[in-house]
This record gives sequence, C-alpha cells and structure tokens, in this order.
Amino acid sequence: MDAEGLLADELFCFLEARRKEDFSYSHILSSMCTTPHPVAVKAHALFMETNLGDPGLFPGTVSLEDELIRWFADLYHEPSAGGCTTSGGTESNIQVLRFCKAAKKAKNPNIVVPASAHFSFEKACKMMDVEMRLAPLDHEYRMDVNAAGELIDKDTCCIVSVAGTTEYGMTDPIPELGKIAGQEDIHLHVDAAFGGYVLPFLKDAPKFDFSIPEVGSISVDPHKMGMGTIPSGVLMVRDEKVFCNLLVETPYLTVKQAYSLTGTRPGASVAAAYAVSRYFGTKGYTSLVTGCMENTRRLIEGMEAFGVRRKVTPDVNVATFDHVDVPKPWIVSYTRKGDLRIVCMPHVSRDVIESFLADFGEFHVPNTH
Amino acid sequence: MDAEGLLADELFCFLEARRKEDFSYSHILSSMCTTPHPVAVKAHALFMETNLGDPGLFPGTVSLEDELIRWFADLYHEPSAGGCTTSGGTESNIQVLRFCKAAKKAKNPNIVVPASAHFSFEKACKMMDVEMRLAPLDHEYRMDVNAAGELIDKDTCCIVSVAGTTEYGMTDPIPELGKIAGQEDIHLHVDAAFGGYVLPFLKDAPKFDFSIPEVGSISVDPHKMGMGTIPSGVLMVRDEKVFCNLLVETPYLTVKQAYSLTGTRPGASVAAAYAVSRYFGTKGYTSLVTGCMENTRRLIEGMEAFGVRRKVTPDVNVATFDHVDVPKPWIVSYTRKGDLRIVCMPHVSRDVIESFLADFGEFHVPNTH
Repeated sequence: MDAEGLLADELFCFLEARRKEDFSYSHILSSMCTTPHPVAVKAHALFMETNLGDPGLFPGTVSLEDELIRWFADLYHEPSAGGCTTSGGTESNIQVLRFCKAAKKAKNPNIVVPASAHFSFEKACKMMDVEMRLAPLDHEYRMDVNAAGELIDKDTCCIVSVAGTTEYGMTDPIPELGKIAGQEDIHLHVDAAFGGYVLPFLKDAPKFDFSIPEVGSISVDPHKMGMGTIPSGVLMVRDEKVFCNLLVETPYLTVKQAYSLTGTRPGASVAAAYAVSRYFGTKGYTSLVTGCMENTRRLIEGMEAFGVRRKVTPDVNVATFDHVDVPKPWIVSYTRKGDLRIVCMPHVSRDVIESFLADFGEFHVPNTH
Repeated sequence: MDAEGLLADELFCFLEARRKEDFSYSHILSSMCTTPHPVAVKAHALFMETNLGDPGLFPGTVSLEDELIRWFADLYHEPSAGGCTTSGGTESNIQVLRFCKAAKKAKNPNIVVPASAHFSFEKACKMMDVEMRLAPLDHEYRMDVNAAGELIDKDTCCIVSVAGTTEYGMTDPIPELGKIAGQEDIHLHVDAAFGGYVLPFLKDAPKFDFSIPEVGSISVDPHKMGMGTIPSGVLMVRDEKVFCNLLVETPYLTVKQAYSLTGTRPGASVAAAYAVSRYFGTKGYTSLVTGCMENTRRLIEGMEAFGVRRKVTPDVNVATFDHVDVPKPWIVSYTRKGDLRIVCMPHVSRDVIESFLADFGEFHVPNTH
C-alpha cells in the first residue's frame, strides 16, 4: 500500500499495461458481450455521476429510464407494460423469483425451468429456498412442453422459458407454455437476456413477447446484443403491480419506497442503452441483427464444409457444433455437453468469420471414421 | 418508437438537455454519493468494455480487482483477508446473509441488526426468509450491546454492526459486539459502506476493522467516500472459505464456478476504484477525509450559532440537527425520526458550507421558545 500517491501519468501508464493483458474482443468468439457502441460509450460518460437509486436528484436520467421502458413496451407489443432497469439478466431473474414467491405464499414453492436455463436460476433458487424443477429439452434443445406440464403442481409459482438460450441459441415453445401457464394460473417468465434484442428484428422468428397473452414478464440485456455498456439489464412486466410485494421503505432518500434489488445504481448504463435505441431505431437494429445472423449461417456452412456438423439451426446468432478443438488465439467455449459453441456478436464480423475459418481449416484434421 | 434512428448530433443535443434536468451536486447535501474523481472517470473509460463475470477473458482487469482487495486487506489490518467486488453495499450485505444463512443451516435463521442499519438488510431478510431482530440504540445512536446480546439465540447466524451509520454517522461499539459474537460463535459483519473510507484515515477514530479478532466481514463502497464510479462495492472477508457455500457451476465461461451474486459485471468501476486508491495513496485519503471532517465541524458550529442544535457529534462526515426547514435550492434530507441530515461529501467544500450557512441564516427564523 502506497502512503504517497502515484502521479497521474505514471498511474495511467500502469493501467494501460494492465488493460493490454486483457484479451481483445477481436478473437473472442465465446462471449455474449461485445464492444459497446461508441454512442453508448459517449452517453455513459455524459451520465457518469448519476444515481438512479436516489431518483429525485436525477429527474432527467429517470426520464430516459422511463422512455427505455416505453421503447421495450412497444417493441414487445404491450404498450401498457411496465418495467425497470437492473444490472443484468441475473438480477432481473432474481427479481422475478422474488415477486413470484411473494405472490404465491406457498410453504415450499417451486419453479419449472428448462434444462437449458441460465445458471442464475440455480443461484436465485438456492438463495430464496425455492425448488428448481428442470424440464428436459426436445431434440432441438427446446423445453419439452409436456414434461414441463407434468412438473407443475399447486406450489409452482413460476414457469421460466428462454428466448435465445445461452448454449444453443434456441427459443422455447412459449405460446404452448403460455396455454399451460394460463390453465394453471402460474406466472410465465421469458428470459430473453440475449434474444430480446434479436428476435424482434428477424422475419419469421419464434414468438416470445407480450403478444402471447400469458407472458407475465420478460428480461432483456442491453449489455449483450443491445450494444450498451455493462451493467445493463431491463425487466419488463405486463402489470407493474407485481412489484408491490417488493417495496421497502427508503428513509433519507428522495423517494419513500423502492422495489429494486440494489441501492445506489448507475444511470450511466441506462442512458447508454437508451442512446443506442434512439440512434439505431428499429431499422438500425434490424440491419445489425440481420448481419449477425448472416455471419452465423456463413460460419455454420464453413464448418460443415470441414466436416464439423452443426448441432442445430439456431433461432439467434449462437452456433454449436460437434466437439472439436480450435487453434489459438481464438477463444471459443463448449456447452455442458461438450459441444463447440460460437457466439456471432457484432464484433464477430464477416472478416472475423473468414479469418477464423481459414485458421481452422489449416489446423483441423478431418475426422475420418 | 423510431423506425429510423436519430443523427448523433441530434441525439446528444437531446441527451444533454435531459442531463441538465438532473440536479447538480453543487447543491446536493443529502447524498452519500459524490462527483467521481477525474482519475476514476478516466480509468472507467479505459476499462469500459471489460466484464469481470467472465474473468478468463480479462486477466489484466482481474489483477486490478485482486490488488484492490489486497489494498483493503492491508488497510483493515489483516493482510491474509480475502474479498470480492460488488455493485455496492446492498449486494455486499446480501452476500453476507447468503453465506451466513448457508453456514448456519438453521430452520428459522435470524440476524441481529442495530435499529440504525441500512434498509438493505430488510430487503435481504425478506428475500431470504431470515428474521431481522432490531437492537435499539443508545443515547448516542450506537447499537445497545446488552440489548443485542439478549436478542441472540441458537438460530442467530449473523450480528450486523455499522461503521458510519447512514443517518447519524455513528459507529457501533464493535469491540464489545465482537466479544459477544466470539462467545456465541456467531459471524460478526461490519457494514462500513460509508465509514470504511473515512475511519481508517482519522486519528482516534473508533475501531471497526479486522484488528478486532471477531470481525468476520466488512463491506465498503468505493462509490461513496472512495470517489469511485457507480456501481462499486467491496466485500472483505477474514476467511475466503465463507464463499464456498455460494459456488454455482458456470458452464460456457472461462471459469467453472462463481460465487458472485450478479453474472456479467463491470470491470470499469473496479478499475476506477483501484485508480483512485493508487492516485491518492493513504496520504491523499487522509487529506480528503480530514477536510470533510473539518467542514462537518464548521457546519455544526454554524448551525448551532443559529440556535439549531446538533443531535450528536458524529464519527464520520454526517451532521444531524433538530428538525428545521432549509431554503431552496439546497437539497437536504431528514432521518426516520425527522432530524435534519447533511452529508459533507467531498463536493460539499468549505465554500459550499459557507454559502449554505449564509442562505440558511437569511431564511431561518430562530425558534424562540
């Protein structure tokens, strides 16, 4: 620990060296995050000191949060929907479990989630003593609706479905799950952390939003395909009343009650997410997402030309293949089952795909059996 | 919702107008946040795209997180202490409850907190079905040790104490609470979200850190008196093994397990917190904190000269007074009991104090009874 401080020049020389030790997104094919859009970075800087945990002090920033929620309400076909911003998908999913558990008041509550659900549900269930029941997937890695139906009982407080799974990029059969949720009067949550910025901008994409009448909530992350800054999540709810169960008194702040999970929370990343939505408009996102899907198809064709089979044709820009190693310095990931997984984020451009395929072709010895 | 996007110039003209609707920190006397230090802002920008939720991709950023933890370990007199960064005090306190509850395995666990505890404990307890037992305060707004002792039973998994309370700026009698915690073998947590950046730099400050042998964990927020960027919290623990109970598997990431509450999480605000600690060194923080305490004393003297009595002489830079209104445009807050509360943050300079006192003097009609 220094007693004397460092000079700024010396400090930033050191910090820049450390920053260079990080991998560059140029070779990262495993992440659902990406380089934030320059408009997001500029907006983030402009709102750096704002704190949405004390909203009365920052009415201008709050108005951007409100407009971002309205933008999603329109995009998800329910103009009267409400919502709030969060630090990302995990916090959004925790908030859903909080209000579902509080509303159900069961002694031993449970939720039904697909085997493909993000690990945040395991974390949230353990924390809140909620049983997590895993519904198996069908041959296309989508939640098996009949199996899900059989897992439900009177203590089920939530059915979770995923729009654009982390591992295989698939979307569960949400309209069918909606029918079950409606019959049994159970909250249906859609984890669209990734797909929520993709599916609305694709032709013939599977349905996942409030146009399905039983969908009660949708989580979506601007810091993934929204090209916003970290940390940035949005939780949309059909009826804002669900938040009432979460209110606590907040003395000495400019509001008297709050339902957010965190206290002090950044306005900067909310302004960044809002800025990108306005800068792109629906046309801009359509162009971005269409490009990512084209690159995903090109990658799949290229890998199959090397004899490496796709696992499935994905709904979003996540490509998976039979297990195979890839050459350095490319960074890929593998699913729980060991399948190769590549996320075609905006930084994974057509040039990056071609460069990866060329390196892979030189490296790969075809499987001959 | 726009189909076409906005031009960048048009967008930033709009965003700047919204930003101007926010209050400026120049007249905010109610907040425990402040304008981040320019060094923090610059470091934040340099690390904007880093994600500590996938640490293998960002080893340079991870090394800064490690060094920030080491800095606090030294500062808090336990070089072998461990810890992690969080989004702020609320998340840190939730993490403490998670590991205390998991370790205790009681059917109906409870925690004992002072009546002055931050409302995040209420939130965390409700979420995790933990009973919150409130210990009353003594005449100086510090936790009553005997009353706390009487609230403890075999299901108590944590005693919470506060170093620099949000409302009155007081520090609980932590060495005495430590004796009880040691006798009963109960985890003792210190919520030093505010005081953790103040008390170590003051002469004759009350003891609160790992030099008290029973203190098991300490939370502290760089985005408060650390002059970091939002969101930024640190949770220090004497023994890192406490986190083992929180581990979940994290498939498809560069690490196999994680114990953090959130998933994707910013490296930018961690780099910012680290940058300020190196830039200031202990001498810089000592100078900053000494100035804030001098301003606090000047404010108290000035208000008492107008006949407005202090409630208590605080341990940190939070001043409280008998209830009285203040003139616009000054933004103050009031405690749950209705006492006037002013936080003398770094942006509340001596000039700001004098300007506030002058305005208050013109506005205030002395209470004559």
